[in-house]
Amino acid sequence: MRHVAPSTVRRLSHYLQHLELAERQGQATVSSRALAKWGGATPAQVRKDLSFFGSFGKRGIGYPVQELAGKIKAILGLGREYRVVLIGAGRIGAALANYPGFDARGFTITAIYDVDPAKIGRRLDAYEIRDVAQLESDLARQPVDIAVIGTPAAAAQGIADRVVRCGVRAILNFAPVTLAVPNEVAVSNVNMAMELEALSFALNHKRA
Amino acid sequence: MRHVAPSTVRRLSHYLQHLELAERQGQATVSSRALAKWGGATPAQVRKDLSFFGSFGKRGIGYPVQELAGKIKAILGLGREYRVVLIGAGRIGAALANYPGFDARGFTITAIYDVDPAKIGRRLDAYEIRDVAQLESDLARQPVDIAVIGTPAAAAQGIADRVVRCGVRAILNFAPVTLAVPNEVAVSNVNMAMELEALSFALNHKRA
Repeated sequence: MRHVAPSTVRRLSHYLQHLELAERQGQATVSSRALAKWGGATPAQVRKDLSFFGSFGKRGIGYPVQELAGKIKAILGLGREYRVVLIGAGRIGAALANYPGFDARGFTITAIYDVDPAKIGRRLDAYEIRDVAQLESDLARQPVDIAVIGTPAAAAQGIADRVVRCGVRAILNFAPVTLAVPNEVAVSNVNMAMELEALSFALNHKRA
Repeated sequence: MRHVAPSTVRRLSHYLQHLELAERQGQATVSSRALAKWGGATPAQVRKDLSFFGSFGKRGIGYPVQELAGKIKAILGLGREYRVVLIGAGRIGAALANYPGFDARGFTITAIYDVDPAKIGRRLDAYEIRDVAQLESDLARQPVDIAVIGTPAAAAQGIADRVVRCGVRAILNFAPVTLAVPNEVAVSNVNMAMELEALSFALNHKRA
Protein backbone atom coordinates (compact mmCIF):
# COMPACT_ATOMS: atom_id res chain seq x y z
CA MET A 1 0.00 0.00 0.00
CA ARG A 2 1.20 3.49 -0.75
CA HIS A 3 2.03 5.91 2.05
CA VAL A 4 -1.06 7.25 3.78
CA ALA A 5 -0.78 10.72 5.33
CA PRO A 6 -1.81 11.19 8.98
CA SER A 7 -4.47 13.68 7.85
CA THR A 8 -6.00 10.96 5.66
CA VAL A 9 -6.04 8.52 8.57
CA ARG A 10 -7.92 11.14 10.60
CA ARG A 11 -10.50 11.63 7.89
CA LEU A 12 -10.98 7.85 7.65
CA SER A 13 -11.68 7.83 11.40
CA HIS A 14 -14.30 10.51 10.86
CA TYR A 15 -15.91 8.63 7.98
CA LEU A 16 -16.03 5.50 10.10
CA GLN A 17 -17.82 7.33 12.92
CA HIS A 18 -20.45 8.48 10.47
CA LEU A 19 -20.82 5.04 8.90
CA GLU A 20 -21.30 3.42 12.31
CA LEU A 21 -23.99 5.97 13.12
CA ALA A 22 -25.64 5.37 9.73
CA GLU A 23 -25.50 1.62 10.35
CA ARG A 24 -27.24 1.99 13.71
CA GLN A 25 -29.91 4.08 11.98
CA GLY A 26 -30.45 1.33 9.40
CA GLN A 27 -29.17 3.23 6.36
CA ALA A 28 -27.89 1.01 3.54
CA THR A 29 -25.95 3.68 1.63
CA VAL A 30 -24.40 7.07 2.32
CA SER A 31 -23.38 9.80 -0.10
CA SER A 32 -19.92 11.29 -0.39
CA ARG A 33 -21.59 14.57 0.54
CA ALA A 34 -22.81 13.18 3.88
CA LEU A 35 -19.38 11.73 4.63
CA ALA A 36 -17.75 15.01 3.67
CA LYS A 37 -19.94 17.03 6.00
CA TRP A 38 -19.09 14.74 8.88
CA GLY A 39 -15.36 14.66 8.23
CA GLY A 40 -14.90 18.37 7.54
CA ALA A 41 -13.85 17.63 3.95
CA THR A 42 -15.23 18.21 0.45
CA PRO A 43 -17.13 15.46 -1.43
CA ALA A 44 -14.24 15.40 -3.93
CA GLN A 45 -11.81 14.77 -1.06
CA VAL A 46 -13.96 11.91 0.21
CA ARG A 47 -14.05 10.27 -3.23
CA LYS A 48 -10.30 10.71 -3.54
CA ASP A 49 -9.64 9.27 -0.06
CA LEU A 50 -11.83 6.24 -0.67
CA SER A 51 -10.75 5.54 -4.26
CA PHE A 52 -7.25 5.28 -2.84
CA PHE A 53 -8.26 2.03 -1.12
CA GLY A 54 -10.29 0.56 -3.97
CA SER A 55 -13.53 1.39 -5.71
CA PHE A 56 -16.63 1.50 -3.50
CA GLY A 57 -19.14 4.14 -4.50
CA LYS A 58 -21.70 4.09 -7.27
CA ARG A 59 -22.68 7.36 -8.88
CA GLY A 60 -26.18 8.36 -7.81
CA ILE A 61 -26.39 5.56 -5.21
CA GLY A 62 -23.53 6.27 -2.85
CA TYR A 63 -21.38 4.00 -0.73
CA PRO A 64 -22.66 0.77 0.83
CA VAL A 65 -22.53 1.48 4.58
CA GLN A 66 -21.56 -1.93 5.93
CA GLU A 67 -19.01 -2.76 3.26
CA LEU A 68 -17.30 0.62 3.51
CA ALA A 69 -17.25 0.51 7.33
CA GLY A 70 -15.64 -2.93 7.20
CA LYS A 71 -13.06 -1.79 4.69
CA ILE A 72 -12.11 1.31 6.71
CA LYS A 73 -11.87 -0.75 9.90
CA ALA A 74 -9.47 -3.07 8.12
CA ILE A 75 -7.39 -0.14 6.86
CA LEU A 76 -7.30 1.35 10.36
CA GLY A 77 -6.15 -1.97 11.79
CA LEU A 78 -9.30 -2.41 13.87
CA GLY A 79 -10.74 -5.88 14.39
CA ARG A 80 -7.73 -7.39 16.11
CA GLU A 81 -6.71 -7.22 19.75
CA TYR A 82 -4.15 -4.70 21.00
CA ARG A 83 -2.52 -5.25 24.34
CA VAL A 84 -2.04 -2.08 26.33
CA VAL A 85 -0.23 -1.08 29.50
CA LEU A 86 -1.11 2.10 31.32
CA ILE A 87 1.61 3.92 33.25
CA GLY A 88 0.29 6.39 35.81
CA ALA A 89 -2.74 5.44 37.89
CA GLY A 90 -4.08 8.96 38.32
CA ARG A 91 -7.17 10.71 37.00
CA ILE A 92 -6.30 9.97 33.39
CA GLY A 93 -5.84 6.32 34.14
CA ALA A 94 -9.21 6.15 35.82
CA ALA A 95 -10.95 7.91 32.92
CA LEU A 96 -9.28 5.64 30.38
CA ALA A 97 -10.04 2.44 32.24
CA ASN A 98 -13.69 3.55 31.95
CA TYR A 99 -13.64 4.71 28.34
CA PRO A 100 -15.94 2.42 26.30
CA GLY A 101 -14.26 3.32 23.00
CA PHE A 102 -11.11 1.66 24.27
CA ASP A 103 -12.62 -1.82 24.48
CA ALA A 104 -14.69 -1.23 21.37
CA ARG A 105 -11.49 -0.87 19.34
CA GLY A 106 -10.02 -4.08 20.70
CA PHE A 107 -7.68 -2.28 23.11
CA THR A 108 -7.25 -4.45 26.20
CA ILE A 109 -5.45 -3.11 29.26
CA THR A 110 -3.17 -5.83 30.62
CA ALA A 111 -1.68 -3.89 33.53
CA ILE A 112 -1.58 -0.49 35.23
CA TYR A 113 1.59 0.87 36.85
CA ASP A 114 2.47 3.65 39.24
CA VAL A 115 5.52 4.81 41.15
CA ASP A 116 3.64 5.88 44.29
CA PRO A 117 3.94 3.31 47.13
CA ALA A 118 0.54 4.50 48.39
CA LYS A 119 -1.07 3.37 45.14
CA ILE A 120 0.88 0.19 44.40
CA GLY A 121 -1.13 -2.88 45.34
CA ARG A 122 -4.42 -0.97 45.41
CA ARG A 123 -7.09 -1.45 42.73
CA LEU A 124 -8.15 0.78 39.85
CA ASP A 125 -11.32 -0.77 38.47
CA ALA A 126 -10.53 -4.36 37.59
CA TYR A 127 -6.76 -3.85 37.85
CA GLU A 128 -4.31 -4.11 40.68
CA ILE A 129 -1.84 -1.25 40.40
CA ARG A 130 1.67 -2.61 39.93
CA ASP A 131 5.05 -1.12 40.80
CA VAL A 132 6.52 0.57 37.72
CA ALA A 133 9.86 -1.03 38.67
CA GLN A 134 8.34 -4.29 37.37
CA LEU A 135 7.62 -2.82 33.93
CA GLU A 136 10.62 -4.34 32.15
CA SER A 137 10.26 -7.83 33.59
CA ASP A 138 6.50 -7.83 32.92
CA LEU A 139 6.93 -6.72 29.31
CA ALA A 140 9.65 -9.30 28.73
CA ARG A 141 7.23 -12.02 29.86
CA GLN A 142 4.16 -10.55 28.18
CA PRO A 143 4.84 -8.06 25.38
CA VAL A 144 2.28 -5.37 24.58
CA ASP A 145 1.44 -3.27 21.52
CA ILE A 146 0.68 0.07 23.11
CA ALA A 147 1.80 2.02 26.18
CA VAL A 148 -0.44 4.77 27.53
CA ILE A 149 1.55 7.39 29.42
CA GLY A 150 -0.50 9.18 32.05
CA THR A 151 2.36 10.31 34.28
CA PRO A 152 3.30 13.87 35.23
CA ALA A 153 5.20 15.68 32.48
CA ALA A 154 8.60 15.34 34.12
CA ALA A 155 8.40 11.53 34.18
CA ALA A 156 7.00 10.97 30.69
CA GLN A 157 10.19 10.89 28.60
CA GLY A 158 11.85 8.42 30.94
CA ILE A 159 8.84 6.09 30.72
CA ALA A 160 8.77 6.47 26.92
CA ASP A 161 12.45 5.48 26.74
CA ARG A 162 11.80 2.43 28.89
CA VAL A 163 8.80 1.12 26.94
CA VAL A 164 10.54 1.72 23.62
CA ARG A 165 13.52 -0.32 24.87
CA CYS A 166 11.00 -3.06 25.70
CA GLY A 167 9.83 -3.12 22.07
CA VAL A 168 6.63 -1.05 22.33
CA ARG A 169 5.91 0.61 18.95
CA ALA A 170 2.90 2.81 19.80
CA ILE A 171 2.41 5.33 22.60
CA LEU A 172 -0.66 7.28 23.63
CA ASN A 173 0.71 10.26 25.54
CA PHE A 174 -1.37 12.33 27.94
CA ALA A 175 1.59 14.12 29.53
CA PRO A 176 1.97 17.74 28.37
CA VAL A 177 5.38 17.23 26.78
CA THR A 178 6.65 16.29 23.32
CA LEU A 179 8.18 12.83 23.48
CA ALA A 180 11.38 12.08 21.57
CA VAL A 181 11.12 8.55 20.14
CA PRO A 182 12.70 6.63 17.27
CA ASN A 183 11.05 6.95 13.84
CA GLU A 184 9.45 3.53 13.97
CA VAL A 185 7.46 4.41 17.11
CA ALA A 186 4.05 6.06 16.62
CA VAL A 187 2.94 8.63 19.20
CA SER A 188 -0.56 10.03 19.61
CA ASN A 189 -1.00 12.93 21.99
CA VAL A 190 -4.00 14.04 24.00
CA ASN A 191 -3.11 17.37 25.54
CA MET A 192 -6.01 19.05 27.31
CA ALA A 193 -3.90 21.95 28.60
CA MET A 194 -2.90 22.79 25.06
CA GLU A 195 -6.46 22.67 23.74
CA LEU A 196 -7.59 25.00 26.52
CA GLU A 197 -4.75 27.42 25.86
CA ALA A 198 -5.51 27.46 22.11
CA LEU A 199 -9.02 28.63 23.05
CA SER A 200 -7.90 31.30 25.49
CA PHE A 201 -5.43 32.52 22.88
CA ALA A 202 -8.18 32.68 20.26
CA LEU A 203 -10.49 34.59 22.59
CA ASN A 204 -7.81 37.21 23.10
CA HIS A 205 -6.75 37.54 19.46
CA LYS A 206 -10.02 37.80 17.61
CA ARG A 207 -9.82 36.98 13.97
CA ALA A 208 -10.78 39.82 11.65
CA MET B 1 0.28 41.86 16.97
CA ARG B 2 0.98 39.95 13.79
CA HIS B 3 -0.85 36.73 12.97
CA VAL B 4 0.32 33.81 15.11
CA ALA B 5 -0.01 30.34 13.59
CA PRO B 6 -1.79 27.61 15.59
CA SER B 7 1.44 25.58 15.57
CA THR B 8 3.23 28.49 17.27
CA VAL B 9 0.50 28.71 19.91
CA ARG B 10 1.00 25.00 20.60
CA ARG B 11 4.74 25.42 21.02
CA LEU B 12 4.16 28.35 23.38
CA SER B 13 1.95 26.05 25.49
CA HIS B 14 4.79 23.53 25.58
CA TYR B 15 7.35 26.15 26.57
CA LEU B 16 5.04 27.36 29.33
CA GLN B 17 4.72 23.83 30.74
CA HIS B 18 8.47 23.59 30.92
CA LEU B 19 8.86 27.04 32.45
CA GLU B 20 6.31 26.23 35.16
CA LEU B 21 8.19 23.04 35.96
CA ALA B 22 11.51 24.95 36.04
CA GLU B 23 9.91 27.54 38.32
CA ARG B 24 8.75 24.86 40.77
CA GLN B 25 12.29 23.48 40.75
CA GLY B 26 13.71 26.91 41.58
CA GLN B 27 15.56 27.52 38.32
CA ALA B 28 16.13 31.19 37.49
CA THR B 29 16.94 30.75 33.79
CA VAL B 30 16.41 28.18 31.04
CA SER B 31 18.24 27.73 27.77
CA SER B 32 16.61 27.72 24.35
CA ARG B 33 17.94 24.16 24.05
CA ALA B 34 16.01 23.01 27.13
CA LEU B 35 12.83 24.67 25.84
CA ALA B 36 13.38 23.13 22.41
CA LYS B 37 13.70 19.65 23.81
CA TRP B 38 10.47 20.04 25.72
CA GLY B 39 8.49 21.53 22.86
CA GLY B 40 9.74 19.19 20.15
CA ALA B 41 11.39 22.07 18.29
CA THR B 42 14.92 23.21 17.47
CA PRO B 43 16.72 25.86 19.57
CA ALA B 44 16.60 28.15 16.50
CA GLN B 45 12.80 27.69 16.35
CA VAL B 46 12.51 28.56 20.05
CA ARG B 47 14.53 31.75 19.58
CA LYS B 48 12.42 32.67 16.56
CA ASP B 49 9.13 31.98 18.39
CA LEU B 50 10.14 34.05 21.40
CA SER B 51 11.76 36.93 19.51
CA PHE B 52 8.41 37.32 17.80
CA PHE B 53 6.97 38.59 21.08
CA GLY B 54 9.87 40.78 22.12
CA SER B 55 13.44 40.20 23.24
CA PHE B 56 13.93 37.99 26.29
CA GLY B 57 16.97 35.82 26.14
CA LYS B 58 20.61 36.68 26.80
CA ARG B 59 23.28 34.79 24.93
CA GLY B 60 25.07 32.38 27.28
CA ILE B 61 22.61 33.03 30.13
CA GLY B 62 19.28 31.96 28.70
CA TYR B 63 15.75 33.13 29.37
CA PRO B 64 14.57 34.39 32.76
CA VAL B 65 12.03 31.75 33.85
CA GLN B 66 9.49 33.90 35.69
CA GLU B 67 9.50 36.77 33.24
CA LEU B 68 9.16 34.51 30.21
CA ALA B 69 6.39 32.43 31.85
CA GLY B 70 4.47 35.63 32.62
CA LYS B 71 4.90 36.90 29.08
CA ILE B 72 3.73 33.62 27.50
CA LYS B 73 0.74 33.49 29.86
CA ALA B 74 -0.21 36.97 28.72
CA ILE B 75 0.15 36.00 25.06
CA LEU B 76 -1.98 32.88 25.61
CA GLY B 77 -4.67 34.95 27.31
CA LEU B 78 -4.22 33.25 30.67
CA GLY B 79 -4.63 35.24 33.88
CA ARG B 80 -8.23 36.24 33.32
CA GLU B 81 -11.44 34.33 34.03
CA TYR B 82 -13.27 32.41 31.33
CA ARG B 83 -16.86 31.42 31.89
CA VAL B 84 -17.66 27.96 30.58
CA VAL B 85 -20.81 25.92 30.06
CA LEU B 86 -20.64 22.17 29.66
CA ILE B 87 -23.25 20.44 27.51
CA GLY B 88 -23.52 16.71 28.12
CA ALA B 89 -23.31 15.40 31.69
CA GLY B 90 -21.74 12.05 30.81
CA ARG B 91 -18.30 10.58 31.44
CA ILE B 92 -16.53 13.46 29.74
CA GLY B 93 -18.40 15.98 31.80
CA ALA B 94 -17.45 14.21 35.00
CA ALA B 95 -13.77 14.00 34.00
CA LEU B 96 -13.68 17.68 33.05
CA ALA B 97 -15.41 18.90 36.18
CA ASN B 98 -12.54 17.16 38.03
CA TYR B 99 -9.67 18.31 35.81
CA PRO B 100 -7.38 20.58 37.87
CA GLY B 101 -5.90 22.23 34.76
CA PHE B 102 -9.30 23.68 34.02
CA ASP B 103 -9.46 25.82 37.16
CA ALA B 104 -5.73 26.55 36.99
CA ARG B 105 -6.26 28.33 33.66
CA GLY B 106 -9.09 30.47 35.01
CA PHE B 107 -11.78 28.33 33.34
CA THR B 108 -14.87 28.39 35.55
CA ILE B 109 -17.83 26.13 34.82
CA THR B 110 -21.03 28.12 35.32
CA ALA B 111 -23.52 25.39 34.38
CA ILE B 112 -23.84 21.82 33.11
CA TYR B 113 -26.64 20.76 30.77
CA ASP B 114 -28.14 17.51 29.58
CA VAL B 115 -31.14 16.40 27.56
CA ASP B 116 -31.84 13.26 29.60
CA PRO B 117 -34.78 13.73 32.04
CA ALA B 118 -33.15 11.11 34.30
CA LYS B 119 -30.11 13.38 34.72
CA ILE B 120 -31.75 16.81 34.83
CA GLY B 121 -31.98 18.10 38.39
CA ARG B 122 -29.35 15.66 39.68
CA ARG B 123 -25.88 16.79 40.71
CA LEU B 124 -22.53 16.38 38.99
CA ASP B 125 -19.92 17.45 41.54
CA ALA B 126 -20.83 20.95 42.64
CA TYR B 127 -23.28 21.48 39.79
CA GLU B 128 -26.96 20.77 39.38
CA ILE B 129 -27.55 19.42 35.89
CA ARG B 130 -29.86 21.74 33.98
CA ASP B 131 -32.25 21.06 31.11
CA VAL B 132 -30.54 21.91 27.81
CA ALA B 133 -33.83 23.54 26.76
CA GLN B 134 -32.84 26.37 29.13
CA LEU B 135 -29.52 26.99 27.37
CA GLU B 136 -30.62 30.03 25.35
CA SER B 137 -32.40 31.80 28.19
CA ASP B 138 -29.49 31.09 30.58
CA LEU B 139 -26.90 32.42 28.13
CA ALA B 140 -28.96 35.52 27.42
CA ARG B 141 -28.98 36.29 31.13
CA GLN B 142 -25.39 35.23 31.78
CA PRO B 143 -23.13 35.09 28.69
CA VAL B 144 -20.15 32.72 28.66
CA ASP B 145 -16.85 32.58 26.77
CA ILE B 146 -16.54 28.87 26.07
CA ALA B 147 -18.89 25.96 25.46
CA VAL B 148 -17.63 22.44 26.08
CA ILE B 149 -19.51 19.91 23.96
CA GLY B 150 -19.54 16.46 25.50
CA THR B 151 -22.65 15.11 23.79
CA PRO B 152 -22.94 12.09 21.48
CA ALA B 153 -21.72 12.79 17.95
CA ALA B 154 -25.19 13.07 16.44
CA ALA B 155 -26.15 15.95 18.77
CA ALA B 156 -22.93 17.96 18.61
CA GLN B 157 -23.54 20.12 15.52
CA GLY B 158 -26.99 21.17 16.74
CA ILE B 159 -25.53 22.24 20.09
CA ALA B 160 -22.69 24.08 18.34
CA ASP B 161 -25.22 26.01 16.21
CA ARG B 162 -27.17 26.95 19.31
CA VAL B 163 -24.22 28.21 21.36
CA VAL B 164 -22.82 30.14 18.39
CA ARG B 165 -26.20 31.86 17.96
CA CYS B 166 -25.95 32.79 21.66
CA GLY B 167 -22.63 34.55 21.00
CA VAL B 168 -20.16 31.91 22.18
CA ARG B 169 -16.85 32.33 20.35
CA ALA B 170 -14.86 29.30 21.56
CA ILE B 171 -15.82 25.61 21.64
CA LEU B 172 -14.02 22.64 23.16
CA ASN B 173 -15.41 19.65 21.29
CA PHE B 174 -15.18 16.07 22.61
CA ALA B 175 -17.71 14.64 20.15
CA PRO B 176 -16.12 12.61 17.33
CA VAL B 177 -17.34 14.88 14.54
CA THR B 178 -16.00 17.93 12.73
CA LEU B 179 -18.07 20.96 13.68
CA ALA B 180 -19.01 23.52 11.06
CA VAL B 181 -18.81 26.99 12.64
CA PRO B 182 -18.34 30.55 11.41
CA ASN B 183 -14.77 31.77 10.94
CA GLU B 184 -14.77 33.90 14.06
CA VAL B 185 -15.46 30.88 16.30
CA ALA B 186 -12.44 28.92 17.57
CA VAL B 187 -12.82 25.15 17.99
CA SER B 188 -10.44 22.83 19.83
CA ASN B 189 -11.02 19.11 19.49
CA VAL B 190 -10.20 16.26 21.84
CA ASN B 191 -10.93 13.08 19.94
CA MET B 192 -9.80 9.96 21.76
CA ALA B 193 -11.26 7.58 19.16
CA MET B 194 -9.18 9.24 16.49
CA GLU B 195 -5.96 9.05 18.51
CA LEU B 196 -6.52 5.36 19.17
CA GLU B 197 -7.21 4.67 15.50
CA ALA B 198 -4.06 6.55 14.45
CA LEU B 199 -2.11 4.13 16.67
CA SER B 200 -3.81 0.98 15.38
CA PHE B 201 -3.24 2.21 11.83
CA ALA B 202 0.44 2.81 12.58
CA LEU B 203 0.84 -0.64 14.14
CA ASN B 204 -0.52 -2.20 10.94
CA HIS B 205 1.48 -0.09 8.51
CA LYS B 206 4.99 -0.14 9.88
CA ARG B 207 7.18 2.63 8.67
CA ALA B 208 10.25 1.51 6.75
